[in-house]
Amino acid sequence: MSEVKKWNLLQEDTEQRMAQVKPLFKQGKEIDAADTVLLLEGVIRPGDRINIEGNNQKQADFLAEALCKVDKEKVHHLHMVQSAVPLAAHLELFELGIAEKLDFAYAGPQSERIATCIQEGKIKLGAIHTYLELFARYFIDLYPKVSLVAAFEADREGNLYTGFNTEDTPAIVEATKFRQGIVIAQANKIVDKLPRVDIPGDWVDVVIEAPRPFYVEPLFTRDPALITDTHILMAMMALKGIYAEYGVQRINHGIGFFTAAIELLLPTYGEELGLKGKVCTHMVLNPHPTLIPAIESGWLQAIHCFGGELGMENYVSQRPDIFTIGPDGTLRSNRAFAQTAGHYALDMFIGGTLQSDKYGNSSTATADRVAGFGGAPNMGCDAKGRRHATDAWLKCGEEFNSTQQLLLGEMPRGKRLVVQMQETFREKMIPSIVERLDAWQLAEKAELSLPPVMVYADDVTHILTEEGIAYLHRCEGLEQRMAAIRAVSGYTEIGLQADPAETAQLRAAGLVKTPEDLGINRQRANRSMLAAKNIKELVDWSGGLYNPPARFRNW
Amino acid sequence: MSEVKKWNLLQEDTEQRMAQVKPLFKQGKEIDAADTVLLLEGVIRPGDRINIEGNNQKQADFLAEALCKVDKEKVHHLHMVQSAVPLAAHLELFELGIAEKLDFAYAGPQSERIATCIQEGKIKLGAIHTYLELFARYFIDLYPKVSLVAAFEADREGNLYTGFNTEDTPAIVEATKFRQGIVIAQANKIVDKLPRVDIPGDWVDVVIEAPRPFYVEPLFTRDPALITDTHILMAMMALKGIYAEYGVQRINHGIGFFTAAIELLLPTYGEELGLKGKVCTHMVLNPHPTLIPAIESGWLQAIHCFGGELGMENYVSQRPDIFTIGPDGTLRSNRAFAQTAGHYALDMFIGGTLQSDKYGNSSTATADRVAGFGGAPNMGCDAKGRRHATDAWLKCGEEFNSTQQLLLGEMPRGKRLVVQMQETFREKMIPSIVERLDAWQLAEKAELSLPPVMVYADDVTHILTEEGIAYLHRCEGLEQRMAAIRAVSGYTEIGLQADPAETAQLRAAGLVKTPEDLGINRQRANRSMLAAKNIKELVDWSGGLYNPPARFRNW
Repeated sequence: MSEVKKWNLLQEDTEQRMAQVKPLFKQGKEIDAADTVLLLEGVIRPGDRINIEGNNQKQADFLAEALCKVDKEKVHHLHMVQSAVPLAAHLELFELGIAEKLDFAYAGPQSERIATCIQEGKIKLGAIHTYLELFARYFIDLYPKVSLVAAFEADREGNLYTGFNTEDTPAIVEATKFRQGIVIAQANKIVDKLPRVDIPGDWVDVVIEAPRPFYVEPLFTRDPALITDTHILMAMMALKGIYAEYGVQRINHGIGFFTAAIELLLPTYGEELGLKGKVCTHMVLNPHPTLIPAIESGWLQAIHCFGGELGMENYVSQRPDIFTIGPDGTLRSNRAFAQTAGHYALDMFIGGTLQSDKYGNSSTATADRVAGFGGAPNMGCDAKGRRHATDAWLKCGEEFNSTQQLLLGEMPRGKRLVVQMQETFREKMIPSIVERLDAWQLAEKAELSLPPVMVYADDVTHILTEEGIAYLHRCEGLEQRMAAIRAVSGYTEIGLQADPAETAQLRAAGLVKTPEDLGINRQRANRSMLAAKNIKELVDWSGGLYNPPARFRNW
Repeated sequence: MSEVKKWNLLQEDTEQRMAQVKPLFKQGKEIDAADTVLLLEGVIRPGDRINIEGNNQKQADFLAEALCKVDKEKVHHLHMVQSAVPLAAHLELFELGIAEKLDFAYAGPQSERIATCIQEGKIKLGAIHTYLELFARYFIDLYPKVSLVAAFEADREGNLYTGFNTEDTPAIVEATKFRQGIVIAQANKIVDKLPRVDIPGDWVDVVIEAPRPFYVEPLFTRDPALITDTHILMAMMALKGIYAEYGVQRINHGIGFFTAAIELLLPTYGEELGLKGKVCTHMVLNPHPTLIPAIESGWLQAIHCFGGELGMENYVSQRPDIFTIGPDGTLRSNRAFAQTAGHYALDMFIGGTLQSDKYGNSSTATADRVAGFGGAPNMGCDAKGRRHATDAWLKCGEEFNSTQQLLLGEMPRGKRLVVQMQETFREKMIPSIVERLDAWQLAEKAELSLPPVMVYADDVTHILTEEGIAYLHRCEGLEQRMAAIRAVSGYTEIGLQADPAETAQLRAAGLVKTPEDLGINRQRANRSMLAAKNIKELVDWSGGLYNPPARFRNW
């Protein structure tokens, strides 16, 4: 008992590492880009937990590439804890043997390569998380020792301007720095005076002016020209059968053409239904270009953003009553708070999925693709800690009551609407509603504890296909819910098991509604309903403020 | 269509208000404390949404009192959106007719007065939230126009040092400022150079040196001298029947003597059970003084804090490997991130409650007390968006499987442990397990949409009384769960309905365990088991680093 326990090992360790790279500093906290590899070799030790910033949008790509260049005799066995792994460099770290373990949330274009790396033993997979869940673990058991983040501008005291693409930076930096870790920022530019401070200089150890601006992916841009009549039919069903029926005001739209179609129908079909000002008034989502007509038509009161969207910078700046804007006139996006709002302050999550099973569990994972979850499960669930009531939430809860009573007795509770949209067949005639999710195979191959499900059957309230809407939470018991799913599953194997008499009963009971049941004329479901039919028309709606990336400019 | 819509009304409105108070500024963003009432009359308009910072700990009390002094001809009909209303001044605003509507999370000592104000029509109640849920709404539909926050120090550029008690400040300031609102900070001191920057100066409009330091409530301090043998027996049951059985590592302890007893048994009974390093290694909670012996004995690897705790400043600073500490050597507490971690990164919530019903729903509300929720429901629920697995979470999910299959089909899922501890009778022999929660009466009186339930029956996994542990999630169906509750309800009316034969079956099936079933010798459940028996011994354990508030110093 006489030995004195040390309580500042983390601090001492960090001080030793920083002392080693001291000669690299130029002025204040600035280090030359050419010294980045030396810096990383100096501050990173084998087995460290390392974060490279990057979600589905901005990427600390220069730092990621520099990490690939370290001497792997010095730096190896790293445990990467990071939102996303969409860059080639992220996977290269594993292929080179610099990194060995991965905890993440979203894979994007690398989903197949990750699956291969796992099967080849190059990646030991910790877990697949939602963004907010991973941030949560950064504060408990997965805090990074070194984080590599991205900013628009930095000053030599370490202050960062993350502006339009603030995104994950505050969560990563806080979790790292206050566990005595090391924060290294790449900036597009090092300046004397920042437009505004997003991250205080105290929290940052090193700033580097990168040789090129950080990469940003315009993930949330959908060209209206690619919206089909089926998308439009399903969007009409959503508006009439769900938005109008529940009076849903606070919403997240997932990424994809289904929700892009809904956005472009608000000022047309939505107005016709008399819904303006009554539904879809508050949203949490990235600045989708396809929302421009609805914003310009006065539908939206407030939008909070996870991140930015390339080309929307100027438009967003000129709409400060709608978006969260800093004193410098630029968007403040913040993934942690936007996901928190998505979990607790929304009445509905609506988005597409790749595959649902006969019970209503759905997933975007297939046997050979570890896609990750991003933010979907965090919003696509019935947030159990929610306590405030809205009309939509109460109505949905009442409809769920017969099931809920099995668990709560006579105690009532509301329920969030979680809507999964999918055509019964995907590209190449792959059925989207199946007996058993591909996620089971993936779990086996990647040795996951559980199949990676995006939305569980007890959370999904509506499955919407081109055949109709299944109001799952209104059903009594698993058998009836499965029947409702069959009834909207068309010519898939699951759909062919539907019993026409049973389907008729479900329709009569309002548990399934076809376009006809909803009074929707299929003839009208065509592109003339869209408020904008292509990217050019979105630019026009914006009065020239929207500046689409080159690849979307086809006029 | 020719009229030009304005998109910067919020901004213009703020500029007009700030222009009106321009003459009050001394140097930079500083205003004299004597001008505070003038300032508030200048920047606040009737009907505004206003936030006064304050949770269960630090309070922007000077600003709250100043707001009570405004001319109510000028300032009235305010909609207060704030974490807590524990100060007399908070309620005075309503009694004076300055404020009329309230959205909040926690009432503390004002719970009876709030109930009265609601019944007298002086408070229109929006909703009762959890902290994180309310923060979420700040970013969507409840953003404050003016926020009044508290800091230790500020400089004249508006930078704030919130240090040990950072707590809610980042969430409030970000939500307010980036919706073009106005942020006013009271600081204990205005200085030239801050120890560290917690809030960048860009985000703050006004700083005021308050005439006295902000008030902080030592809410999480429990004197070990008040721990009873029953608390100790129940703590032993928790350790052996839950911590050990599930190997739970990441935990939140609710406030109260039950969990204080658990903390003080870790280095004694916990070591005896061989649990050190295996359970309770990572925690999210305030720096409870009763955790000192466990920390000193090497039980804890990491703690993340919602807020500070009076008297623990120095101790926490000297344990930087355990707590989140800034470069200045002081705790960085952050309620938003700690609650996020509490929701998504923990395997167990364990805490006391006042009342459970026969189904297992529990609440701290009684007919005449609107207590609020604080953070409990956010942690005391099965976070549905969670996707990473731990052994404890998987085991609990497997045990819940027969119930879960009714909703998910054959799809497996984990489940968080949610443990409610209560003696079968409270003070004055009031039964704590009842037919129907008092929350029903409160809902009626306060015109709430739903009874304010803290933990719902489908989230609670264990009810632990001095009679035994009911493993509710292992039961099949509502009837069996109710029987398990009856079996641990002692001599309450609910307990007297227990059928001894049925209880014997439940015990045989491991659905109910008494101290004897757990192999716990009741004779040992006495105060000699505690690692510290009073506050003085906690100070000794801390090597004199813990500096308890005067009211706890009785030696």
